[in-house]
Amino acid sequence: MKVQNYSEIEETEVTMEGAKDVSMRLLISENDEAKNFAMRMFTVEPGGHTPFHFHDFEHEVFILEGQGVLKAEKKEQPFKAGDVIFVKPDEKHQFRNAGSGQMRFLCLIPIQDKCA
Amino acid sequence: MKVQNYSEIEETEVTMEGAKDVSMRLLISENDEAKNFAMRMFTVEPGGHTPFHFHDFEHEVFILEGQGVLKAEKKEQPFKAGDVIFVKPDEKHQFRNAGSGQMRFLCLIPIQDKCA
Repeated sequence: MKVQNYSEIEETEVTMEGAKDVSMRLLISENDEAKNFAMRMFTVEPGGHTPFHFHDFEHEVFILEGQGVLKAEKKEQPFKAGDVIFVKPDEKHQFRNAGSGQMRFLCLIPIQDKCA
Repeated sequence: MKVQNYSEIEETEVTMEGAKDVSMRLLISENDEAKNFAMRMFTVEPGGHTPFHFHDFEHEVFILEGQGVLKAEKKEQPFKAGDVIFVKPDEKHQFRNAGSGQMRFLCLIPIQDKCA
């Protein structure tokens, strides 16, 4: 069993187009022999955001710290620490930090379609 | 997209044999059309614990609050808020609250073997 504080896990800048001042830690992944889904932590600096994009897999999100705005195709919704967010496959989305401090969240994704 | 504070989600007592003073909230599940994995939040009162058991699927855990001990077949490891825990399939495990306040964690599991 792996027990590790998130702060000990390497943090890398997200360089994907459309991302601004976002970093990621890969908390649990195939490197740990996880076969079904991966746990990532994202940290967004004030004014920063993830790309406004969509993809064919879901996001299961838990907001750990801070506050922000979830931008979708036709609306924007505020969120704050303690909020749970489910983004379905193909829904366009962007997480924006709307606060004065860091905004931090867990975002889990499926690792692969095992039946493919 | 679902955006909801965890506190608004129904909390139910865990009545599984071996559990003591544990409650659960089902944060994201098949009810939300999540098809690959489910996000649950567990709250353990001081002195409480989850069952000491194993099963054929993994746990991906993030400790949100408090401190505890992870009991395995041959050892015990302390954990605290901010710790990431990966329990592989068939590993025997128990989460014990070793603090004086509530211990709260996210625990994600695969929903099903889609290839079965």
